[in-house]
Amino acid sequence: METLQAILTRRSIRSFTDEPVSEEQIHRIIEAGMYAPSANNHQPWHFIVINEREQLNKIPVFHPYAKMVNKAPLVIAVCGDTRLEAAEGYLALDCGAAVQNMMLAAHSLGIGSCWLGVYPRKQRMEAVTELLELPRHILPIALIVLGIPRELKSTPKRFRPDRVYSNRWPYPEPETGRL
Amino acid sequence: METLQAILTRRSIRSFTDEPVSEEQIHRIIEAGMYAPSANNHQPWHFIVINEREQLNKIPVFHPYAKMVNKAPLVIAVCGDTRLEAAEGYLALDCGAAVQNMMLAAHSLGIGSCWLGVYPRKQRMEAVTELLELPRHILPIALIVLGIPRELKSTPKRFRPDRVYSNRWPYPEPETGRL
Repeated sequence: METLQAILTRRSIRSFTDEPVSEEQIHRIIEAGMYAPSANNHQPWHFIVINEREQLNKIPVFHPYAKMVNKAPLVIAVCGDTRLEAAEGYLALDCGAAVQNMMLAAHSLGIGSCWLGVYPRKQRMEAVTELLELPRHILPIALIVLGIPRELKSTPKRFRPDRVYSNRWPYPEPETGRL
Repeated sequence: METLQAILTRRSIRSFTDEPVSEEQIHRIIEAGMYAPSANNHQPWHFIVINEREQLNKIPVFHPYAKMVNKAPLVIAVCGDTRLEAAEGYLALDCGAAVQNMMLAAHSLGIGSCWLGVYPRKQRMEAVTELLELPRHILPIALIVLGIPRELKSTPKRFRPDRVYSNRWPYPEPETGRL
Protein backbone atom coordinates (compact mmCIF):
# COMPACT_ATOMS: atom_id res chain seq x y z
CA MET A 1 0.00 0.00 0.00
CA GLU A 2 1.26 3.48 -0.84
CA THR A 3 2.47 5.44 2.20
CA LEU A 4 0.17 8.47 1.98
CA GLN A 5 -2.78 6.20 1.31
CA ALA A 6 -1.92 4.15 4.39
CA ILE A 7 -1.65 7.28 6.52
CA LEU A 8 -4.96 8.71 5.31
CA THR A 9 -7.02 5.48 5.41
CA ARG A 10 -5.82 3.97 8.71
CA ARG A 11 -8.67 3.93 11.23
CA SER A 12 -9.14 2.42 14.67
CA ILE A 13 -10.53 -1.09 14.15
CA ARG A 14 -12.48 -2.68 16.99
CA SER A 15 -14.09 -5.71 15.34
CA PHE A 16 -12.05 -8.66 14.11
CA THR A 17 -12.57 -11.98 12.35
CA ASP A 18 -11.42 -15.27 13.88
CA GLU A 19 -8.40 -15.44 11.58
CA PRO A 20 -5.01 -15.34 13.27
CA VAL A 21 -2.25 -12.84 12.61
CA SER A 22 0.78 -14.82 11.39
CA GLU A 23 4.20 -14.91 13.06
CA GLU A 24 5.63 -13.27 9.94
CA GLN A 25 3.11 -10.43 10.14
CA ILE A 26 3.79 -9.93 13.86
CA HIS A 27 7.49 -9.77 13.08
CA ARG A 28 7.00 -7.11 10.42
CA ILE A 29 4.77 -5.00 12.67
CA ILE A 30 7.26 -5.04 15.55
CA GLU A 31 10.14 -4.43 13.17
CA ALA A 32 8.31 -1.32 11.92
CA GLY A 33 8.07 -0.11 15.52
CA MET A 34 11.81 -0.55 15.99
CA TYR A 35 12.49 1.61 12.91
CA ALA A 36 10.92 4.66 14.51
CA PRO A 37 13.28 7.47 15.38
CA SER A 38 14.04 7.98 19.06
CA ALA A 39 15.70 10.72 21.09
CA ASN A 40 19.47 10.27 20.77
CA ASN A 41 18.66 6.98 19.01
CA HIS A 42 18.27 5.25 22.37
CA GLN A 43 15.57 2.89 21.03
CA PRO A 44 14.19 2.62 24.57
CA TRP A 45 11.38 0.17 23.81
CA HIS A 46 10.26 -3.38 24.51
CA PHE A 47 7.43 -5.28 22.86
CA ILE A 48 5.34 -7.95 24.55
CA VAL A 49 3.22 -10.10 22.25
CA ILE A 50 0.08 -11.15 24.13
CA ASN A 51 -1.78 -14.04 22.49
CA GLU A 52 -2.68 -16.33 25.38
CA ARG A 53 -6.44 -16.12 25.70
CA GLU A 54 -6.29 -16.00 29.48
CA GLN A 55 -3.91 -13.02 29.43
CA LEU A 56 -5.96 -11.24 26.75
CA ASN A 57 -9.21 -11.63 28.63
CA LYS A 58 -7.78 -9.93 31.71
CA ILE A 59 -7.29 -6.68 29.80
CA PRO A 60 -10.96 -5.57 29.55
CA VAL A 61 -11.31 -6.19 33.28
CA PHE A 62 -9.23 -3.09 34.05
CA HIS A 63 -9.32 -1.11 30.79
CA PRO A 64 -12.56 0.75 30.06
CA TYR A 65 -12.20 0.77 26.26
CA ALA A 66 -10.89 -2.76 25.73
CA LYS A 67 -14.05 -4.84 25.38
CA MET A 68 -12.99 -5.87 21.85
CA VAL A 69 -9.93 -7.64 23.25
CA ASN A 70 -12.19 -10.51 24.31
CA LYS A 71 -12.57 -11.30 20.61
CA ALA A 72 -9.21 -10.16 19.29
CA PRO A 73 -6.41 -12.63 18.55
CA LEU A 74 -3.55 -10.43 19.60
CA VAL A 75 -2.39 -7.44 21.63
CA ILE A 76 1.12 -6.01 21.54
CA ALA A 77 2.20 -4.05 24.60
CA VAL A 78 4.71 -1.29 23.87
CA CYS A 79 6.81 -0.50 26.93
CA GLY A 80 9.42 2.16 27.65
CA ASP A 81 12.64 1.49 29.54
CA THR A 82 13.57 4.27 31.97
CA ARG A 83 17.13 2.90 32.16
CA LEU A 84 17.55 3.48 28.42
CA GLU A 85 15.76 6.86 28.40
CA ALA A 86 15.48 8.76 31.66
CA ALA A 87 13.23 11.56 30.35
CA GLU A 88 9.65 10.30 30.47
CA GLY A 89 8.60 12.90 27.90
CA TYR A 90 11.06 11.43 25.40
CA LEU A 91 9.90 7.89 26.26
CA ALA A 92 6.34 8.89 25.42
CA LEU A 93 7.33 10.60 22.16
CA ASP A 94 9.57 7.71 21.07
CA CYS A 95 6.91 5.12 21.85
CA GLY A 96 4.24 7.26 20.16
CA ALA A 97 6.29 7.23 16.96
CA ALA A 98 6.87 3.47 17.29
CA VAL A 99 3.16 2.76 17.81
CA GLN A 100 2.29 4.82 14.74
CA ASN A 101 4.80 2.90 12.61
CA MET A 102 3.28 -0.35 13.87
CA MET A 103 -0.30 0.70 13.11
CA LEU A 104 0.66 1.84 9.60
CA ALA A 105 2.61 -1.36 8.96
CA ALA A 106 -0.35 -3.42 10.16
CA HIS A 107 -2.78 -1.47 7.98
CA SER A 108 -0.57 -1.93 4.93
CA LEU A 109 -0.58 -5.69 5.62
CA GLY A 110 -4.39 -5.77 5.83
CA ILE A 111 -4.43 -5.95 9.61
CA GLY A 112 -6.61 -3.66 11.70
CA SER A 113 -5.43 -2.07 14.91
CA CYS A 114 -6.65 -0.01 17.83
CA TRP A 115 -4.46 1.94 20.26
CA LEU A 116 -5.52 1.49 23.88
CA GLY A 117 -4.17 4.30 26.02
CA VAL A 118 -2.17 3.26 29.09
CA TYR A 119 0.50 5.88 29.90
CA PRO A 120 0.09 8.30 31.72
CA ARG A 121 -3.04 6.85 33.41
CA LYS A 122 -1.65 5.53 36.74
CA GLN A 123 -4.36 2.94 37.35
CA ARG A 124 -4.01 1.37 33.92
CA MET A 125 -0.22 1.42 34.19
CA GLU A 126 -0.42 -0.45 37.49
CA ALA A 127 -2.79 -3.02 36.03
CA VAL A 128 -0.61 -3.66 32.95
CA THR A 129 2.49 -3.82 35.15
CA GLU A 130 0.82 -6.53 37.19
CA LEU A 131 -0.55 -8.41 34.16
CA LEU A 132 2.79 -8.48 32.38
CA GLU A 133 4.92 -8.79 35.54
CA LEU A 134 6.92 -5.73 34.56
CA PRO A 135 9.83 -4.59 36.71
CA ARG A 136 9.66 -1.04 38.04
CA HIS A 137 11.98 0.49 35.44
CA ILE A 138 9.72 -0.62 32.58
CA LEU A 139 6.73 1.67 31.91
CA PRO A 140 3.77 0.28 29.99
CA ILE A 141 2.97 2.95 27.40
CA ALA A 142 0.36 1.53 25.05
CA LEU A 143 -1.54 -1.61 24.13
CA ILE A 144 -2.16 -2.21 20.44
CA VAL A 145 -5.06 -4.53 19.63
CA LEU A 146 -4.56 -6.33 16.31
CA GLY A 147 -6.55 -8.62 14.05
CA ILE A 148 -8.09 -9.09 10.64
CA PRO A 149 -10.78 -6.37 10.34
CA ARG A 150 -14.43 -7.37 10.37
CA GLU A 151 -15.44 -3.73 9.79
CA LEU A 152 -14.83 -1.31 6.96
CA LYS A 153 -14.42 2.35 7.88
CA SER A 154 -14.45 5.31 5.57
CA THR A 155 -11.89 8.11 5.63
CA PRO A 156 -13.03 11.20 7.54
CA LYS A 157 -11.96 14.74 6.73
CA ARG A 158 -9.34 15.62 9.31
CA PHE A 159 -7.34 18.41 7.75
CA ARG A 160 -7.99 21.62 9.69
CA PRO A 161 -6.60 24.75 8.06
CA ASP A 162 -7.30 26.66 11.28
CA ARG A 163 -4.53 24.68 12.98
CA VAL A 164 -1.78 25.82 10.59
CA TYR A 165 0.12 29.09 11.11
CA SER A 166 2.96 30.93 9.45
CA ASN A 167 6.20 31.60 11.36
CA ARG A 168 4.58 32.47 14.72
CA TRP A 169 1.40 32.14 16.75
CA PRO A 170 -1.30 34.43 15.40
CA TYR A 171 -2.72 37.28 17.43
CA PRO A 172 -5.50 37.93 18.22
CA GLU A 173 -5.67 34.34 19.30
CA PRO A 174 -7.70 31.96 17.18
CA GLU A 175 -10.61 29.92 18.51
CA THR A 176 -9.36 26.38 19.08
CA GLY A 177 -12.32 24.74 20.70
CA ARG A 178 -12.81 21.02 20.89
CA LEU A 179 -14.02 19.24 17.80
CA MET B 1 6.45 4.68 -2.03
CA GLU B 2 5.27 1.49 -0.39
CA THR B 3 4.46 1.86 3.32
CA LEU B 4 6.84 -0.72 4.78
CA GLN B 5 9.61 0.51 2.51
CA ALA B 6 9.01 4.08 3.72
CA ILE B 7 9.11 2.95 7.35
CA LEU B 8 12.32 0.94 6.93
CA THR B 9 14.24 3.44 4.78
CA ARG B 10 13.38 6.74 6.53
CA ARG B 11 16.49 8.22 8.13
CA SER B 12 17.28 11.53 9.81
CA ILE B 13 18.47 13.88 7.07
CA ARG B 14 20.66 16.81 8.07
CA SER B 15 21.95 18.11 4.72
CA PHE B 16 19.68 19.73 2.16
CA THR B 17 19.86 21.21 -1.33
CA ASP B 18 18.77 24.78 -2.06
CA GLU B 19 15.50 23.61 -3.60
CA PRO B 20 12.34 24.72 -1.84
CA VAL B 21 9.61 22.46 -0.49
CA SER B 22 6.39 23.36 -2.31
CA GLU B 23 3.18 24.60 -0.70
CA GLU B 24 1.46 21.44 -1.93
CA GLN B 25 4.10 19.24 -0.30
CA ILE B 26 3.86 21.18 2.97
CA HIS B 27 0.11 20.72 2.88
CA ARG B 28 0.41 16.97 2.42
CA ILE B 29 2.95 16.63 5.22
CA ILE B 30 0.80 18.55 7.71
CA GLU B 31 -2.30 16.70 6.57
CA ALA B 32 -0.50 13.43 7.32
CA GLY B 33 0.17 14.71 10.85
CA MET B 34 -3.49 15.48 11.34
CA TYR B 35 -4.43 11.91 10.37
CA ALA B 36 -2.57 10.46 13.34
CA PRO B 37 -4.71 8.89 16.02
CA SER B 38 -5.02 10.82 19.28
CA ALA B 39 -6.33 9.99 22.74
CA ASN B 40 -10.13 10.29 22.64
CA ASN B 41 -9.64 11.74 19.14
CA HIS B 42 -8.96 15.17 20.64
CA GLN B 43 -6.52 16.08 17.83
CA PRO B 44 -4.76 18.43 20.26
CA TRP B 45 -2.15 19.77 17.82
CA HIS B 46 -1.10 22.94 16.03
CA PHE B 47 1.45 23.30 13.24
CA ILE B 48 3.60 26.35 12.67
CA VAL B 49 5.36 26.52 9.31
CA ILE B 50 8.66 28.39 9.75
CA ASN B 51 10.21 29.55 6.48
CA GLU B 52 11.34 33.11 7.22
CA ARG B 53 15.12 32.99 7.14
CA GLU B 54 15.40 35.24 10.19
CA GLN B 55 13.16 32.98 12.25
CA LEU B 56 14.96 29.83 11.05
CA ASN B 57 18.39 31.17 11.91
CA LYS B 58 17.37 31.81 15.50
CA ILE B 59 16.80 28.10 16.10
CA PRO B 60 20.46 26.93 16.18
CA VAL B 61 21.21 29.73 18.65
CA PHE B 62 19.35 27.87 21.40
CA HIS B 63 19.15 24.28 20.10
CA PRO B 64 22.35 22.25 20.34
CA TYR B 65 21.56 19.88 17.44
CA ALA B 66 20.07 22.37 14.98
CA LYS B 67 23.09 23.64 13.06
CA MET B 68 21.61 22.30 9.80
CA VAL B 69 18.64 24.68 10.13
CA ASN B 70 20.90 27.50 8.90
CA LYS B 71 20.83 25.80 5.52
CA ALA B 72 17.39 24.23 5.58
CA PRO B 73 14.43 25.82 3.79
CA LEU B 74 11.79 24.85 6.29
CA VAL B 75 10.97 23.83 9.84
CA ILE B 76 7.54 22.79 11.06
CA ALA B 77 6.88 23.19 14.77
CA VAL B 78 4.42 20.68 16.22
CA CYS B 79 2.71 22.05 19.30
CA GLY B 80 0.30 20.52 21.81
CA ASP B 81 -2.71 22.33 23.22
CA THR B 82 -3.26 21.72 26.93
CA ARG B 83 -6.81 23.04 26.64
CA LEU B 84 -7.63 20.29 24.14
CA GLU B 85 -5.72 17.55 26.02
CA ALA B 86 -5.01 18.08 29.70
CA ALA B 87 -2.82 14.99 30.16
CA GLU B 88 0.72 15.90 29.07
CA GLY B 89 1.57 12.24 28.58
CA TYR B 90 -1.21 11.94 26.00
CA LEU B 91 -0.10 15.19 24.35
CA ALA B 92 3.38 13.74 23.91
CA LEU B 93 2.09 10.42 22.56
CA ASP B 94 -0.36 12.10 20.18
CA CYS B 95 2.26 14.50 18.86
CA GLY B 96 4.81 11.67 18.57
CA ALA B 97 2.41 9.79 16.32
CA ALA B 98 1.72 12.96 14.29
CA VAL B 99 5.43 13.69 13.84
CA GLN B 100 6.03 10.14 12.64
CA ASN B 101 3.22 10.42 10.08
CA MET B 102 4.75 13.69 8.86
CA MET B 103 8.25 12.25 8.53
CA LEU B 104 6.96 9.22 6.62
CA ALA B 105 4.83 11.40 4.35
CA ALA B 106 7.82 13.64 3.68
CA HIS B 107 10.07 10.67 2.91
CA SER B 108 7.50 9.21 0.53
CA LEU B 109 7.45 12.59 -1.28
CA GLY B 110 11.25 12.63 -1.61
CA ILE B 111 11.70 15.12 1.23
CA GLY B 112 14.20 14.53 4.01
CA SER B 113 13.45 15.34 7.64
CA CYS B 114 15.07 15.49 11.04
CA TRP B 115 13.25 15.55 14.37
CA LEU B 116 14.69 18.10 16.79
CA GLY B 117 13.70 17.29 20.35
CA VAL B 118 12.01 20.08 22.29
CA TYR B 119 9.56 18.65 24.86
CA PRO B 120 10.26 17.87 27.72
CA ARG B 121 13.50 19.94 27.79
CA LYS B 122 12.46 23.09 29.70
CA GLN B 123 15.11 25.39 28.27
CA ARG B 124 14.32 24.50 24.66
CA MET B 125 10.59 24.78 25.33
CA GLU B 126 11.08 28.29 26.72
CA ALA B 127 13.17 29.30 23.71
CA VAL B 128 10.64 27.98 21.18
CA THR B 129 7.80 29.58 23.14
CA GLU B 130 9.58 32.92 22.84
CA LEU B 131 10.53 32.45 19.17
CA LEU B 132 6.99 31.52 18.12
CA GLU B 133 5.23 33.81 20.61
CA LEU B 134 3.25 30.87 21.99
CA PRO B 135 0.64 31.46 24.68
CA ARG B 136 1.10 29.48 27.91
CA HIS B 137 -1.43 26.77 27.10
CA ILE B 138 0.45 25.77 23.94
CA LEU B 139 3.43 23.43 24.51
CA PRO B 140 6.10 23.21 21.82
CA ILE B 141 6.72 19.49 21.39
CA ALA B 142 8.98 19.04 18.38
CA LEU B 143 10.65 20.85 15.50
CA ILE B 144 10.82 19.00 12.19
CA VAL B 145 13.52 20.20 9.79
CA LEU B 146 12.57 19.56 6.17
CA GLY B 147 14.21 19.88 2.77
CA ILE B 148 15.34 18.06 -0.35
CA PRO B 149 18.08 15.64 0.80
CA ARG B 150 21.67 16.29 -0.20
CA GLU B 151 22.75 13.05 1.48
CA LEU B 152 21.91 9.41 0.87
CA LYS B 153 21.77 7.16 3.91
CA SER B 154 21.66 3.38 3.95
CA THR B 155 19.22 1.34 6.01
CA PRO B 156 20.68 0.05 9.29
CA LYS B 157 19.65 -3.18 10.98
CA ARG B 158 17.39 -2.15 13.83
CA PHE B 159 15.34 -5.23 14.59
CA ARG B 160 16.33 -6.56 17.99
CA PRO B 161 14.89 -9.97 18.82
CA ASP B 162 16.02 -9.49 22.44
CA ARG B 163 13.38 -6.77 22.84
CA VAL B 164 10.42 -9.03 22.01
CA TYR B 165 8.73 -11.19 24.65
CA SER B 166 5.80 -13.56 24.83
CA ASN B 167 2.83 -12.78 27.09
CA ARG B 168 4.85 -11.44 30.04
CA TRP B 169 8.20 -10.03 31.06
CA PRO B 170 10.83 -12.76 31.14
CA TYR B 171 12.58 -13.79 34.35
CA PRO B 172 15.44 -13.94 35.04
CA GLU B 173 15.62 -10.44 33.62
CA PRO B 174 17.31 -10.00 30.26
CA GLU B 175 20.27 -7.70 29.69
CA THR B 176 18.95 -4.53 28.09
CA GLY B 177 22.01 -2.35 27.96
CA ARG B 178 22.35 0.68 25.77
CA LEU B 179 23.19 0.12 22.12
